[in-house]
Amino acid sequence: MSDYNPFTNPAPRQPTDGPYFREEVALSNRNHGVALEMLRHDVTPIGMHYLLIHFDIPYIPTEAEWRIDVGGEVARPMTLTVADIKALPVRTMRVTLECAGNGRGLFPQRMPSMPWLSEAVGTGEWTGTPLRHVLERAGVKPGTVEIAFESVDRGSDRGNEHTYGRSLKTDLAMSEDVMLVWAMNGLPLQPQHGFPLRLIVPGWYGMASVKWLRTITALKSPYQGHQQVGTYHFKKTAEEKGIPITHMRVKSLMVPPGIPDWYTRQRLVEQGPVEIFGRAWSGGAVPIAKVEVAVDGRWHEATLDPAADKYAWRGWRFTWKAEPGEHQLMCRATDANGAVQPMEADYDRGGFGNNAVQRVLVTVR
Amino acid sequence: MSDYNPFTNPAPRQPTDGPYFREEVALSNRNHGVALEMLRHDVTPIGMHYLLIHFDIPYIPTEAEWRIDVGGEVARPMTLTVADIKALPVRTMRVTLECAGNGRGLFPQRMPSMPWLSEAVGTGEWTGTPLRHVLERAGVKPGTVEIAFESVDRGSDRGNEHTYGRSLKTDLAMSEDVMLVWAMNGLPLQPQHGFPLRLIVPGWYGMASVKWLRTITALKSPYQGHQQVGTYHFKKTAEEKGIPITHMRVKSLMVPPGIPDWYTRQRLVEQGPVEIFGRAWSGGAVPIAKVEVAVDGRWHEATLDPAADKYAWRGWRFTWKAEPGEHQLMCRATDANGAVQPMEADYDRGGFGNNAVQRVLVTVR
Repeated sequence: MSDYNPFTNPAPRQPTDGPYFREEVALSNRNHGVALEMLRHDVTPIGMHYLLIHFDIPYIPTEAEWRIDVGGEVARPMTLTVADIKALPVRTMRVTLECAGNGRGLFPQRMPSMPWLSEAVGTGEWTGTPLRHVLERAGVKPGTVEIAFESVDRGSDRGNEHTYGRSLKTDLAMSEDVMLVWAMNGLPLQPQHGFPLRLIVPGWYGMASVKWLRTITALKSPYQGHQQVGTYHFKKTAEEKGIPITHMRVKSLMVPPGIPDWYTRQRLVEQGPVEIFGRAWSGGAVPIAKVEVAVDGRWHEATLDPAADKYAWRGWRFTWKAEPGEHQLMCRATDANGAVQPMEADYDRGGFGNNAVQRVLVTVR
Repeated sequence: MSDYNPFTNPAPRQPTDGPYFREEVALSNRNHGVALEMLRHDVTPIGMHYLLIHFDIPYIPTEAEWRIDVGGEVARPMTLTVADIKALPVRTMRVTLECAGNGRGLFPQRMPSMPWLSEAVGTGEWTGTPLRHVLERAGVKPGTVEIAFESVDRGSDRGNEHTYGRSLKTDLAMSEDVMLVWAMNGLPLQPQHGFPLRLIVPGWYGMASVKWLRTITALKSPYQGHQQVGTYHFKKTAEEKGIPITHMRVKSLMVPPGIPDWYTRQRLVEQGPVEIFGRAWSGGAVPIAKVEVAVDGRWHEATLDPAADKYAWRGWRFTWKAEPGEHQLMCRATDANGAVQPMEADYDRGGFGNNAVQRVLVTVR
């Protein structure tokens, strides 16, 4: 047995510039990234959407016995079945979600955790009902500042045992676009995506979209759950309080052209015209304004595909006249607020929000 | 640009006892393992079955235009549509598949490649038709020694550019159980599982079950494709020819009990009776004869669930009276041929066939 026990005497985790640990590989093997070539699909096929699961996937055999308790600062506390929620007005939304930790593994100083490089993104077609229908029926009392959402997946992080939970400001929770969903891509939610009911908070990083939703609680003071206050903050040192992570930052990814080398994933491309294409997105429903592609450091503007749904990524393409030799390709998005992807990520201690430009090495023959 | 180019001057890959490389993490992020708690499902839910994809997932928008060429040493070469194949006698089989590289990342001397620990396994309910129906219609000529199966996913490995392909001895290919399949768990194959048509070779490690099947070729001399002769051999040195990898070795995995620590995945369990349960399987349709569970090195026999389909894993369970403190749990299967999981894996240079017992660290309170 080791000197450290993760529950009673957890080992400190510190940023490192070294190679990866077995614990990181274990997380990487059980969490799923999108294969970048699948970015060509407007809606990510079932089984290819990224998954970041903090604890274990709960075992919930059928939806019939599932209950959602709505309580706290509400006039009419209630316990709902999934059938009750399915009886509310139905809406289907196409939403791009990205993990806040996407790119963590690329930080020169990297917090040991799930070592995403660029794969933690996907677009689902989510069917459910706006959360406000439930909140309105329960009657949120004046003075409520946040709505908290708790799941049933439970575990420990740095010795802090807790059930996964997050909260939203009441105004946001009451908006039309925050959804309770029971289907993805036209199928009932898979267990790993939150069966039988989950939250979807469009425009935000994925940590807000609580899976396996069990309770909805109106609060008159801010929620203090570990996943709300103990992590998911931008900060540069362990000591500072940091800035809560909310909306996704502007980002783009290309489908790597040509064919891969198995191990390095570098690319082999035939000379001549090559269509470079991919996806770009930003947070908070801010549209994409521009995507550029760099060949060996020289930038060219890409053509944007027609705008898709408000919260879905946007396609783009650029024709590259590939000439023999080794080349580096990059892509860079700018959103309608003028936010642009940086060449190097702003350091973050927890490895959050890395939206630096993607680099793809290509050999043309 | 680096000194090495993976296509023209590939870097040698050598076994290492060091930490993991970024290339391994990139493979781990794009390939998908089963979350071990999902082993409780008899059939692995869609999106949770392991995926090992050598090159890129091919883009095949619809099955209508897909053709399978049947040629070589056959009396009647033919080009079939998926509809032609679906018109043949339909059969659904429950089959457990494991990647030959499962456990590679646990070898003390580890070949840099996909660093599976224990997650590369799954059980699907595959619908298709026995391959022999196609071979009989084409009329395999006497003197045919192998049937080769080629896909369309193409790439390079150690400078060897090729399209993924594998072969089977003619007798095996003509057996009732080798299948051409178009559906998994009652749904059309997902792109990443081989849409629109793939091979399933039950009882074998997964490399034999060629996805995105494009050609079926009867050969009068053994197939020389890279994935058949250049890899997937058990060997201890780079120089030896090695032994071709075929059937899965006997193996078992438990669902880790209790709740996890996020980073280490160690487990926290309440004292008292705890049901330890999981799955066991072997290759070549050999049944599981026994599963044992060890608590701190002392072995106890588990109870086997009723036998399932011929090629599907078997459930087992054992009630542990958990006492406070730190414990190590293990499980070990024995098959009807008397093959038993080793405590430590027999070294293999490519990291194949690691069926050593699983170890799970648990803190009981």
